[in-house]
Amino acid sequence: MKQSFDYYMPAKVCFRAGASKDAARFIKGSNVLIISDPFLLKTGVAEAIGNSMTGKNVAYFGEIEPNPSCESVDKAAAAAREMKTDCIIGLGGGSALDVAKIVACLADNEGSIYDYYAGGTRTLSDRKASLICIPTTAGTGSEVTNVGVYTNKKAGIKMPMVNDLFWADVAIIDPELTYTLPAAITASTGMDAFCHAIEAYWNKNSQPICDMMAMTALKNIMEHIKTAYEEPDNKEARGAMLAASLFAGIAFSQTRTTGIHALSFPLTTEFGASHGIACSVTLPAFIRISTQGEKEKMESLASYLGYESVQSLADGVEELMVSMKMPVRLHEIGVKESDLAHITEVGMGAPIIQLTPAIMNEETVHGLLKSIL
Amino acid sequence: MKQSFDYYMPAKVCFRAGASKDAARFIKGSNVLIISDPFLLKTGVAEAIGNSMTGKNVAYFGEIEPNPSCESVDKAAAAAREMKTDCIIGLGGGSALDVAKIVACLADNEGSIYDYYAGGTRTLSDRKASLICIPTTAGTGSEVTNVGVYTNKKAGIKMPMVNDLFWADVAIIDPELTYTLPAAITASTGMDAFCHAIEAYWNKNSQPICDMMAMTALKNIMEHIKTAYEEPDNKEARGAMLAASLFAGIAFSQTRTTGIHALSFPLTTEFGASHGIACSVTLPAFIRISTQGEKEKMESLASYLGYESVQSLADGVEELMVSMKMPVRLHEIGVKESDLAHITEVGMGAPIIQLTPAIMNEETVHGLLKSIL
Repeated sequence: MKQSFDYYMPAKVCFRAGASKDAARFIKGSNVLIISDPFLLKTGVAEAIGNSMTGKNVAYFGEIEPNPSCESVDKAAAAAREMKTDCIIGLGGGSALDVAKIVACLADNEGSIYDYYAGGTRTLSDRKASLICIPTTAGTGSEVTNVGVYTNKKAGIKMPMVNDLFWADVAIIDPELTYTLPAAITASTGMDAFCHAIEAYWNKNSQPICDMMAMTALKNIMEHIKTAYEEPDNKEARGAMLAASLFAGIAFSQTRTTGIHALSFPLTTEFGASHGIACSVTLPAFIRISTQGEKEKMESLASYLGYESVQSLADGVEELMVSMKMPVRLHEIGVKESDLAHITEVGMGAPIIQLTPAIMNEETVHGLLKSIL
Repeated sequence: MKQSFDYYMPAKVCFRAGASKDAARFIKGSNVLIISDPFLLKTGVAEAIGNSMTGKNVAYFGEIEPNPSCESVDKAAAAAREMKTDCIIGLGGGSALDVAKIVACLADNEGSIYDYYAGGTRTLSDRKASLICIPTTAGTGSEVTNVGVYTNKKAGIKMPMVNDLFWADVAIIDPELTYTLPAAITASTGMDAFCHAIEAYWNKNSQPICDMMAMTALKNIMEHIKTAYEEPDNKEARGAMLAASLFAGIAFSQTRTTGIHALSFPLTTEFGASHGIACSVTLPAFIRISTQGEKEKMESLASYLGYESVQSLADGVEELMVSMKMPVRLHEIGVKESDLAHITEVGMGAPIIQLTPAIMNEETVHGLLKSIL
């Protein structure tokens, strides 16, 4: 066992079917801004939660796009300041939650996100507004991390921002919100959670608490993702998947991610792949090379998940992805051989790539990408 | 998997050999009170930590006895108020940590512990002093719980107090501090941690995060306690035991304990058994009855720990205790048959006894005690 580690995850977790309709009990003050995406606004999911808060003054900001831009953050922050918000609720996938995290800070910190991020020199000081994160996918795990990922459209770069003010006060995890997720989203967000868990497990920063969380998450996903994909209202499968996403989130909140996420950034910003697709497309290849640095640990994981070897685990994951109609080759998301050098360069620019348990340099990364072209 | 659970453990955990000599980096303000026991003061352990804090004004309060009394709490609170403490450090076993928790509150809340506890009607408001817990046994797990246990000498009762202000800001977990633990303390505190873990696991409030923590803790203890007992400076065993104590603490901080702890209170206050002995003496008997309510779950645990059945797990635990010269019968700690009715009555008065996965009434509890007389 690793004899040196840190652990800190101060968010209160409330996991319960229907819990999102009981969020008001966590809110002091009366002005609440729910930050969500156009779909959750249009379908009444956000409103149902807002309406459950008797006596609160609830406003909605629904202009969150996938891979949210700094411009959307600044618009949401203006809405929060205008209503003098006491509480920000992020409701949605990772995008809405990530925006909610920084908007809860910007509500009482002047200026634009650009002042604090991507070269900005100001530092966010104390957050006064409380922050509640309610995920609607299983998923992001963003409800239990202190990371937000924003896209700097000026520079065309998607970059994470880490801040202890980004820990939610409360993570409300309500499986009911996932019963209507379309199959393709169930698959891509579920495999994103798989990446979080396995990247925490093989991470150079891995530690025993994260290992427990990651292993449980991976087992839940292997056992339940296909059922959740095929039977959207299967309560047991949906609960297990959302719990997996939570555990994976706690795991990678301590370790950060690795090469899979590093390479996903250019695949998303430049090829338009959704985050889950951009991550999982390289997952089997990374499983195959993970034995370079973590042979024993990965063999023990493969065995725990019911596979004879790490290579057969990688094959199993690839087959699972194919069975859910997910791309397993880069050309399926529009990547050409001539793009590989650039993807390699951008991926190598993300420091987390060096947390991968394998040699990561221009040659090896280019080779990995070419092997799954 | 349970589809409804809460989780909240906001303490920052720093696990590292030597970490206790680096506590200053977590302290704002300059006035630090280290609360410990006479032994740790006398042997210079407390002073070594105090001396590492260059530039801080460090005072020591060393009058903490096992099963700390409300009178000791009030004395320590007076010391904290006098020095206008910015930070309370609890250093020791459960007793010192428990006292530190409430003293950190009383530093800026008027009056005596009796005003807030055991019939007192006042409520502790915001805690201003920061709180650092440094365990020296593996152990209590108190560094990651919001519970303190105090003995009300007036009424002759040992009672837990639960308060969210009791969460430490930082739990500094330094295996080096346990290298000098005597074998008997290694055994009794280690089996206390075993009780925490298994009582969290079979608890009616059990939940998946606690199950992971509990299982890992139980495995660590079964694999390493004997080595730690026989080779006090075995670093791997000491680290594994202190990690087990940490994981068990996180587990039972969410679930509370069960019958083992309920019955330990009279065994400690009236028969003078140490907390670990008072708990573990009933442990094998409770393992045997746990299948009443949690048959499958307990069988799965037994198998995970390498036993064929729950009964053979109970036998194995009993043999382990005997091999460490721990009492496994009540008469060994001075209990007579005529005492059983009273122990039953006091145990039944602790609400946690009903979290045991078995029928707990006067008859069954009396029967359990008689079976191990």
